[in-house]
Amino acid sequence: MKNILTDEKLTEITKQITDNYKSDCLYCAEKGSMPNRSAITHIIMMLRQIMFPGYFEEEHLSTDTSRTYFVGSKLLELRDALYGQIKAAYTFDSEKEYSDEELSSKASFVCDNFLSSFGRIQQLILKDIQAAFDGDPAAKTKEDIIYCYPGLLAIFVYRFAHVLYEMKVPYIPRIMTEYAHGHTGIDINPGATIGEYFFIDHGTGVVIGETTIIGDYVKIYQGVTLGALSTRSGQLLRDVKRHPTIEDHVTVYSNASILGGETIIGEGSVIGGNAFITESVPPNSRLTANSSINIEPIKQNKQKYFD
Amino acid sequence: MKNILTDEKLTEITKQITDNYKSDCLYCAEKGSMPNRSAITHIIMMLRQIMFPGYFEEEHLSTDTSRTYFVGSKLLELRDALYGQIKAAYTFDSEKEYSDEELSSKASFVCDNFLSSFGRIQQLILKDIQAAFDGDPAAKTKEDIIYCYPGLLAIFVYRFAHVLYEMKVPYIPRIMTEYAHGHTGIDINPGATIGEYFFIDHGTGVVIGETTIIGDYVKIYQGVTLGALSTRSGQLLRDVKRHPTIEDHVTVYSNASILGGETIIGEGSVIGGNAFITESVPPNSRLTANSSINIEPIKQNKQKYFD
Amino acid sequence: MKNILTDEKLTEITKQITDNYKSDCLYCAEKGSMPNRSAITHIIMMLRQIMFPGYFEEEHLSTDTSRTYFVGSKLLELRDALYGQIKAAYTFDSEKEYSDEELSSKASFVCDNFLSSFGRIQQLILKDIQAAFDGDPAAKTKEDIIYCYPGLLAIFVYRFAHVLYEMKVPYIPRIMTEYAHGHTGIDINPGATIGEYFFIDHGTGVVIGETTIIGDYVKIYQGVTLGALSTRSGQLLRDVKRHPTIEDHVTVYSNASILGGETIIGEGSVIGGNAFITESVPPNSRLTANSSINIEPIKQNKQKYFD
Amino acid sequence: MKNILTDEKLTEITKQITDNYKSDCLYCAEKGSMPNRSAITHIIMMLRQIMFPGYFEEEHLSTDTSRTYFVGSKLLELRDALYGQIKAAYTFDSEKEYSDEELSSKASFVCDNFLSSFGRIQQLILKDIQAAFDGDPAAKTKEDIIYCYPGLLAIFVYRFAHVLYEMKVPYIPRIMTEYAHGHTGIDINPGATIGEYFFIDHGTGVVIGETTIIGDYVKIYQGVTLGALSTRSGQLLRDVKRHPTIEDHVTVYSNASILGGETIIGEGSVIGGNAFITESVPPNSRLTANSSINIEPIKQNKQKYFD
Amino acid sequence: MKNILTDEKLTEITKQITDNYKSDCLYCAEKGSMPNRSAITHIIMMLRQIMFPGYFEEEHLSTDTSRTYFVGSKLLELRDALYGQIKAAYTFDSEKEYSDEELSSKASFVCDNFLSSFGRIQQLILKDIQAAFDGDPAAKTKEDIIYCYPGLLAIFVYRFAHVLYEMKVPYIPRIMTEYAHGHTGIDINPGATIGEYFFIDHGTGVVIGETTIIGDYVKIYQGVTLGALSTRSGQLLRDVKRHPTIEDHVTVYSNASILGGETIIGEGSVIGGNAFITESVPPNSRLTANSSINIEPIKQNKQKYFD
Amino acid sequence: MKNILTDEKLTEITKQITDNYKSDCLYCAEKGSMPNRSAITHIIMMLRQIMFPGYFEEEHLSTDTSRTYFVGSKLLELRDALYGQIKAAYTFDSEKEYSDEELSSKASFVCDNFLSSFGRIQQLILKDIQAAFDGDPAAKTKEDIIYCYPGLLAIFVYRFAHVLYEMKVPYIPRIMTEYAHGHTGIDINPGATIGEYFFIDHGTGVVIGETTIIGDYVKIYQGVTLGALSTRSGQLLRDVKRHPTIEDHVTVYSNASILGGETIIGEGSVIGGNAFITESVPPNSRLTANSSINIEPIKQNKQKYFD
Repeated sequence: MKNILTDEKLTEITKQITDNYKSDCLYCAEKGSMPNRSAITHIIMMLRQIMFPGYFEEEHLSTDTSRTYFVGSKLLELRDALYGQIKAAYTFDSEKEYSDEELSSKASFVCDNFLSSFGRIQQLILKDIQAAFDGDPAAKTKEDIIYCYPGLLAIFVYRFAHVLYEMKVPYIPRIMTEYAHGHTGIDINPGATIGEYFFIDHGTGVVIGETTIIGDYVKIYQGVTLGALSTRSGQLLRDVKRHPTIEDHVTVYSNASILGGETIIGEGSVIGGNAFITESVPPNSRLTANSSINIEPIKQNKQKYFD
Repeated sequence: MKNILTDEKLTEITKQITDNYKSDCLYCAEKGSMPNRSAITHIIMMLRQIMFPGYFEEEHLSTDTSRTYFVGSKLLELRDALYGQIKAAYTFDSEKEYSDEELSSKASFVCDNFLSSFGRIQQLILKDIQAAFDGDPAAKTKEDIIYCYPGLLAIFVYRFAHVLYEMKVPYIPRIMTEYAHGHTGIDINPGATIGEYFFIDHGTGVVIGETTIIGDYVKIYQGVTLGALSTRSGQLLRDVKRHPTIEDHVTVYSNASILGGETIIGEGSVIGGNAFITESVPPNSRLTANSSINIEPIKQNKQKYFD
Repeated sequence: MKNILTDEKLTEITKQITDNYKSDCLYCAEKGSMPNRSAITHIIMMLRQIMFPGYFEEEHLSTDTSRTYFVGSKLLELRDALYGQIKAAYTFDSEKEYSDEELSSKASFVCDNFLSSFGRIQQLILKDIQAAFDGDPAAKTKEDIIYCYPGLLAIFVYRFAHVLYEMKVPYIPRIMTEYAHGHTGIDINPGATIGEYFFIDHGTGVVIGETTIIGDYVKIYQGVTLGALSTRSGQLLRDVKRHPTIEDHVTVYSNASILGGETIIGEGSVIGGNAFITESVPPNSRLTANSSINIEPIKQNKQKYFD
Repeated sequence: MKNILTDEKLTEITKQITDNYKSDCLYCAEKGSMPNRSAITHIIMMLRQIMFPGYFEEEHLSTDTSRTYFVGSKLLELRDALYGQIKAAYTFDSEKEYSDEELSSKASFVCDNFLSSFGRIQQLILKDIQAAFDGDPAAKTKEDIIYCYPGLLAIFVYRFAHVLYEMKVPYIPRIMTEYAHGHTGIDINPGATIGEYFFIDHGTGVVIGETTIIGDYVKIYQGVTLGALSTRSGQLLRDVKRHPTIEDHVTVYSNASILGGETIIGEGSVIGGNAFITESVPPNSRLTANSSINIEPIKQNKQKYFD
Repeated sequence: MKNILTDEKLTEITKQITDNYKSDCLYCAEKGSMPNRSAITHIIMMLRQIMFPGYFEEEHLSTDTSRTYFVGSKLLELRDALYGQIKAAYTFDSEKEYSDEELSSKASFVCDNFLSSFGRIQQLILKDIQAAFDGDPAAKTKEDIIYCYPGLLAIFVYRFAHVLYEMKVPYIPRIMTEYAHGHTGIDINPGATIGEYFFIDHGTGVVIGETTIIGDYVKIYQGVTLGALSTRSGQLLRDVKRHPTIEDHVTVYSNASILGGETIIGEGSVIGGNAFITESVPPNSRLTANSSINIEPIKQNKQKYFD
Repeated sequence: MKNILTDEKLTEITKQITDNYKSDCLYCAEKGSMPNRSAITHIIMMLRQIMFPGYFEEEHLSTDTSRTYFVGSKLLELRDALYGQIKAAYTFDSEKEYSDEELSSKASFVCDNFLSSFGRIQQLILKDIQAAFDGDPAAKTKEDIIYCYPGLLAIFVYRFAHVLYEMKVPYIPRIMTEYAHGHTGIDINPGATIGEYFFIDHGTGVVIGETTIIGDYVKIYQGVTLGALSTRSGQLLRDVKRHPTIEDHVTVYSNASILGGETIIGEGSVIGGNAFITESVPPNSRLTANSSINIEPIKQNKQKYFD
């Protein structure tokens, strides 16, 4: 079989690539490996099993002791997995160099605090499910929502990722929300602040930026952007509030864009679909895009632009 | 290694979670397990292999008898898998309690009817492929469409899920369409009614609500919402027609929104991109959003809002 | 258990399906199997490991020789996998019939050229990472971008798929970009031409059509469509330039649509969110949608349309 | 490709096989499926983890509560898996027909009793480990024995299988010991009765028949058969004691055979390698095979028989 | 981390190994890859499913048509897998060089003949099961034998491997019987000739050489060797009859050795355990090893040799 | 479903087991986890690929550079895996407590030396293959031997395990040889010393003890024991030579036992099948068991003992 890659070509291509490696240290992750994506996916799966046993795996838990053992055991498994990932994340973090002891102590601290938040978050998610059920006539049961609503998955993952974000754990919060983003098309930055009874319907294309603040009883639809006005200044804007504030009881319909760190949507307001908003809106406003529409009859065989 | 989770902390966190379980029976799926997501994914894969043998697995079927045996055998395998999932779905269904015999008989009835629809649906999908090929100059071959067009996957899954939806099978139709939603960003509620020769191009962000009615020869693009005007009344709206009717030969361009259960887009109409429509449109209309645009030169070093 | 599928029913359903097979040869992929999706996914994974060792697998490569061996070995593995897929793609290609020798020679030629492009593409991707880091204040580090930015994944896959597209390899380029589309919601046709320092933020819903031309230093946001005006003429439009040209240093904000093969966005321009553009824009323009907005107070208990 | 299996041939071969099915109902397991081998392998793995946590999986259990949760949770998982397999075994059992309720009740009874034996068996196995450590100078540590001694694996599996055998569970005890047989070459029938501090060294080829009785502190080596004299009467011998009795403190060296249901090896005896015994031996005997050996010099170039 | 393998060491070790490659072409399998072991394991699994549906997988086949479809479909799958492996085996065969066409034609011929033997072999195996049931009082049911008797597995695999051996297919017959050898400790060379109603009890350590001839109704026990007298002449003995002939109705008890190509065990004979036989035995003989045994009392504290 | 495990029972069984844990620290592997069996299996697989590329995986390596890259890369992968396992083994080792630095340095030292032995071992194995080919007329090709001879697998694994044994690595050498034992029924203690051109035919039941010394050109058959006379003194015998010495050019036929640390089989000797030897044999001896045999005719209907 003459159709092989010759030694010359193989050597040459290899050299081109390894020369690139030498030109910029970013190419090679030299400090070790990044946190492991599939380990983090597994952590998310364990969170789902702990929060809602019986929905995502074949646990048949019908007594109190059985649930106690199950939860306790899963917590240990999750803690072990997370502990390793957090150590990896801090090791890999390009900015500091930690001793092994510091790494262990930081990872332990984070794990303990993270696990301590579970009971509280579990209650928050129950409220999110209630919001979804109340807000969506197509929802047949709350079980449906737990089991297959992408909006709930995105919020679920966000709520846990946010706890890690607040403890300044590198990489992992973003890997978690990107997992949800990849599966739902909903991109919630783990830095966002989101209140209770939050519901995202359909959800594909939703973007919620890092410094967004969202109150309680807020509902948003697919394609909604809660974004920045401009990011031209790039890294100079880091830590500046660039994304809007949405107060309690606001509804934002599909494909609306609300932009800017000083933009506040007052409580009880309703933002119509496709609206493009860069300034604040007073409470209890109904805001609709003035989208006049042009209708003309189609004449046969005339096929110009845009038909 | 002192960095362990102490027994006190472990016990306490476990207690918080199990106390939550006791506070609301929704937390624990007590009746058994939900239908199994990976079993349903496998059913979808078998449907693809039965409908289009040779595209999705390494079946080398070149004679009539070989195809008969292959199809017959896959049907049996699919039937077995589906039968189990349907029993699980009815068992889990929170509203009724069935005897084992009722469950078996319901599941058999559903399976038989579902399989009986395959020949008809297979022909429908062939027409959907034709629609895609005719409608997309970027489609090199029809095989391309079968193999990797997300729009076709979404329609394919919808057509089967809809049959189960009509037989009022709980959970499974939605799990099926959410599988497609997750992989394509196209969210077609299994309750929607969709005619022949249907094509969705690109597709990310498309939402087609539960009570939508779509005629034949309809083409829609990415980001199109066929939605409800408002869902504030929540569960009170269940079973009310909340989503629009799109008649035959209509094209809806990208990011257009058509909302409301009484909104009818008359046959032969063309809806322009970004249009936001909440009222009916007569047949053979060309509808374009009046989106006037403001153009101003950018002066150097002037970087205000929105650049 | 009486609840079985009867032999009559099984035979009948099987017959309906196999009769369909006979009615249209498209149903059965008779020439062999399509390129294998999971093999191609594996190829993409190998590309990521070769370009950025240490990020996606547990390679601990800290010396030059170890990197050389690693890269050389991965290249061989990738070449073998790709060679097989390319032969499959040409075999399956409906339009021509190749001898075994032609297939081998075509596949070898493609593989050699593809691998020869790796060093160059690797440098391009480094620039894309720089663009993302400069353009996104939420990016903590460049490693974050490599590891979990969906925009980068989409561009990464596009850059390799485009090389194969240019060599007219059937099926595989599209399968590659659809992989990225499925995981990111970003649909870049492998035929598009894209310059250096390209960044897509958030990305869900982005569509970049087959004949689009994009210059250097361009940044686009989620929901942006670079599309065709109309595709009514279907396959007649094949190979016609149907999608816009975006010159250097242009920024296109979220959900903007730029349509038409003759539409040119002049260099340095900024296209505002939600803008809908079907005509060319001169260089250094700031273009904003004139979206006037209607604000009215919400009165209690008045719940009409669209709240 | 003409090298296909013709429809005639395929049909004919299929017919030959299905005709065989019709000729004897044994060919097809019609009542359902046999207990699932991989489920039972998984049960054995769980037993190993419960008995010796930390050896066979990455459990890091360093506190009492963590062990309680781990064990309790694994017990639940094991119980669920076993319950299903036991129901399958009784269903498949060719001799009786049980109602669903009877099946559940039998399976529950068996599971409860089986789990109740765990504490006791765990102590027995610790003694078996002690016996192995005391008896084998090549054993570096007791951990070595737990982790990789085939003799211990065979005894471990036997001790649990025997509990199920005594409760007359069909199929499963034998599947369990055949698992061990396949991995160690040690064939202990689950019906055998074996005392404390039992050790099998090396083990390949050991056979311990169904009605064997073995006392405490017994040690046996590879290739030892504790078998029946003759099985010519076949099924007529069922439930007859056909295999020997080995009293306390007996050692049986490699490849010795001890046959017959009335053969008793008195306590404290030592049976030499290769001995072939069909009659009882008094206590405290040293028994050696009278294997005289013939030694002759090998003359060069003379190569007749048996060299 | 300084504990890395230095480039010098890595280069040097690599060189030592690749220098070895250059010294003897046997090191590298240059012609392609050997037949794939896991593919052949899968073929054996399919054979088990075809011969005894319902025992080894969850096929629920309760009607004639369902069995026909199942068998036909499995035959196609098996044929495809085998066809590829046989082509690989002939390609790799070091002695000849075949054209692609010859390979295809040889592989097709072998596959067709192999499949044509299935009906006949299936009947043979049913008789082997009967032999096992009649011969083993510990066998509770025939299903037990099908499902977990290692003796039956070894014979099952041998019967199919022998068909391929007779067609002179390289490598694959031996890989098949070594699969069984590894799982059962029973080493039947695929070249042996074995009659009907054959039973191997327990089986570990059984060796049946390549030129052995075994009649009908033969039963053998663990550790029995049917071997060659001497193999000093090595490859010169190839194709010479080196192993014994066992006539009908013979029983060979455990650990007996019968050696030599001219050794014939006359029909109806019974060979006692541990017997070592190198000459022929007339029909209807009972042959027992004259193993006199020496028994002496064990005196306390006297621990010399061999206790 | 009332058939559940009650909380009382679950608590009680859990308590019995955890009480056992507290009674003996051996139950719980507290220091961490044992070396991972599947990691070690993977290491063995990599060794096979490095030694004989193309036989065990689909590497298509036809040029020198490709082999260099492949080998170099596999060596790195193997080194990484082994490094981790060796650290685990030393950590777990019950006798000493190492600092992290010591662990790293010990593991590095072992890895470097282990890899440095590969070239030499590779040559040894080539000689073992030659011995097998010369010694077995049933061997069709040397490739057959590499690919599927259990005797070669056992020797292959032993040769590498022995290198680690000599460096006093805990646990891992034994886990390696037990892997081979489980797959072949051949139990070679990693401590044994074995010369060149070694061949084990069939092999099931072979035992080669820890202090055995074997010369060059030795051939042994299935069921051969090279063992200790007595192990009654248990751990007191540790490190004492307990197993025999087999000089060059010796053949030991099936089921022979050679026992005792002072027993020497002089060079060039041939040990007949079933021989039981506890004393030394001079060089160039032919040793046969004096197994006289008793033959009597079988009279009809007379079925006493042992037929």
